Amino acid sequence: MTHTPASSFSPADQAAMALAIAQAEQAIGLTDPNPRVGCVLVGRDGQLLGQGHTQQAGGPHAEVMAMRQARAAGHDLRGATAYVTLEPCAHHGRTPPCADALVEAGLGRVVAALVDPFAQVAGQGLARLARAGIVTSVGLMADEARAQNIGFLSRVLRQRPWVRLKVAGSLDGRTALPNGVSQWITGPAARADGHAWRRRASAVLTGIGTVLADDPGLDVRLVPTPRQPWRVVLDSRLRTPVGARLLDGPGETLICTLASPAEQDRWRQSLPHRPEAAGRVTLLEATPDARGRPALPPLLQELARRGVNELHVEAGAELAGALIEAGLVDEYLFYLAPSLLGPGRPLAALGPYERLEQARLLRWQSVSPVGDDLRLIARPADQDLSWLAS
Amino acid sequence: MTHTPASSFSPADQAAMALAIAQAEQAIGLTDPNPRVGCVLVGRDGQLLGQGHTQQAGGPHAEVMAMRQARAAGHDLRGATAYVTLEPCAHHGRTPPCADALVEAGLGRVVAALVDPFAQVAGQGLARLARAGIVTSVGLMADEARAQNIGFLSRVLRQRPWVRLKVAGSLDGRTALPNGVSQWITGPAARADGHAWRRRASAVLTGIGTVLADDPGLDVRLVPTPRQPWRVVLDSRLRTPVGARLLDGPGETLICTLASPAEQDRWRQSLPHRPEAAGRVTLLEATPDARGRPALPPLLQELARRGVNELHVEAGAELAGALIEAGLVDEYLFYLAPSLLGPGRPLAALGPYERLEQARLLRWQSVSPVGDDLRLIARPADQDLSWLAS
Repeated sequence: MTHTPASSFSPADQAAMALAIAQAEQAIGLTDPNPRVGCVLVGRDGQLLGQGHTQQAGGPHAEVMAMRQARAAGHDLRGATAYVTLEPCAHHGRTPPCADALVEAGLGRVVAALVDPFAQVAGQGLARLARAGIVTSVGLMADEARAQNIGFLSRVLRQRPWVRLKVAGSLDGRTALPNGVSQWITGPAARADGHAWRRRASAVLTGIGTVLADDPGLDVRLVPTPRQPWRVVLDSRLRTPVGARLLDGPGETLICTLASPAEQDRWRQSLPHRPEAAGRVTLLEATPDARGRPALPPLLQELARRGVNELHVEAGAELAGALIEAGLVDEYLFYLAPSLLGPGRPLAALGPYERLEQARLLRWQSVSPVGDDLRLIARPADQDLSWLAS
Repeated sequence: MTHTPASSFSPADQAAMALAIAQAEQAIGLTDPNPRVGCVLVGRDGQLLGQGHTQQAGGPHAEVMAMRQARAAGHDLRGATAYVTLEPCAHHGRTPPCADALVEAGLGRVVAALVDPFAQVAGQGLARLARAGIVTSVGLMADEARAQNIGFLSRVLRQRPWVRLKVAGSLDGRTALPNGVSQWITGPAARADGHAWRRRASAVLTGIGTVLADDPGLDVRLVPTPRQPWRVVLDSRLRTPVGARLLDGPGETLICTLASPAEQDRWRQSLPHRPEAAGRVTLLEATPDARGRPALPPLLQELARRGVNELHVEAGAELAGALIEAGLVDEYLFYLAPSLLGPGRPLAALGPYERLEQARLLRWQSVSPVGDDLRLIARPADQDLSWLAS
């Protein structure tokens, strides 16, 4: 699929696509494992006719939502332009193909930000529209659309979730005092912001050390959400207490373990018959790595296979360090508190290094004040995103 | 001295004072121990007649420089307004009183950002102008003017330099690898920016540990400067090698020591007869604190007595920690590299703390990207600046 040159888009096209991107933003926390898609319909006279975004998986897509809104207002869609942040689907999934619906409505033009990389779509949606005489173009605000669906694109294009490591620490790089005290190094605004990032994710990953030390819920509490991400625990020896908070619903908990089937059975049988928990725990058989720990790349592949787009990691120094050293962290979400804690727990177990060339080099992506703290987003300096350029 | 209400200043007044502040900025690195002062002269018709800033100590003040420029351009100063970032002086120091020069020139109005807190001025300059029939007002852009001369104000109002601790570290709070390797954690832009902050300072303070480990020059090299700040070394047992780089000129080196007079004599006699060094080293008798180390508050008082306005600290974890724990750091200048170093040297030797309430809490003042790094300026959260409100 060749991208349309940027110069062929008008300022009105830009404005309409920006609205469609804003619509897709509304779908965050709602549509996983499906992508977040926004759609804006503009009449031949430039009037905004309708807008919408994808609903939860199995529900209507963005194009259908926008057309419904336009029709409810009595608008005629013939000759209108649809701006969509992802190519309209052309296959019968849980809903009929959106491309057909756009053709039937008599639209004159469809502008997509991105081609859908999903093999069953992959340019076929736009091709179907073109065959029906609709003018199609693609590539408008592609970078913004990619950023919105970075997890979906990662899952589909490289069979791995987009891994975002969240850490909250002090200016001297501590996540807790030597005795483990960490509540609260960052302020309420940073904690709520952290929950908004959890909400974006299909799943939240932690290690058994954190479960045993802090018994975290790992659910989204500080911001409203229509859906809870799954909890994933890396737990070689299946030490997760059967009363652990992260086994509470709603949503599923996956425990990745090296424990034998007999041990797994025993653990399962010890689960209390809490209706909200018992049925929602899945034990995943891990592959041991060279050091006898659960190997991380196969776990990530398995999570992608199960539909995890963005994986939000909130872990102790051990798991964080293992993910970093393995080159598996795509993005760092760092909350920097304006404090100095002295000795304490490090962000990540790394090194020790003897030369600075061995250190993990990042690039700052963004810096935002959040309450009294700073939110720093960074990515690996040597990050290869060639898989993303679809 | 009552401040003039802000509402009595016009936008033209604002613009002229902003120019005067920009003039004073040109005096940074030039005037110590004198304050940085800018002056802008505006004619009755609103025309800019002249501008200038204080020169090095003993040289002409800002008012004189601005009047010289105006006269060289053939302007008539009668009835003009002078905008000065600090009250014109009224005493005979190394130069005649500026207040008299403004009266003689026939100025109609003088607007000052700040009253000069220096006891020999302290409102008398403005009073003299008023007696001569000149309209005076004060307080325009006072905050900006205070920030420019924070060190001068600190020295005069609380007999202590403004202490700025500079640290360069990684995201995980390391200033060096375990083996001491630290060149370079931050990039060239951050290092040059650090030298610009050194240039602001009257003196650069370090500890003997840093001198022995790194043999730093601590001079301003990466940005042009008309003057080198003094070097100050905290060196209880007088272990500074007589060939240390920071003994090289230009400018003075002060070594604060607990060594006996006999040891001091021996050390002095061992100095090589380098013309650029030998005469420029001053040994300061330190007062031992309860733990037998040089006490910091008397050292800061002595430095203020000698004319140090801003003290720039580049020290290892020991001295940094001691200054922080003693509540003597007024401002943190932190260069945050986008890297993770694993185990290594901490920013500052603090704690260990058992409760978060014991931690040192700061407030972010500003965040700026500098090359690939971030420059974070912070101050103690509980900072008391009541001494500054003159």
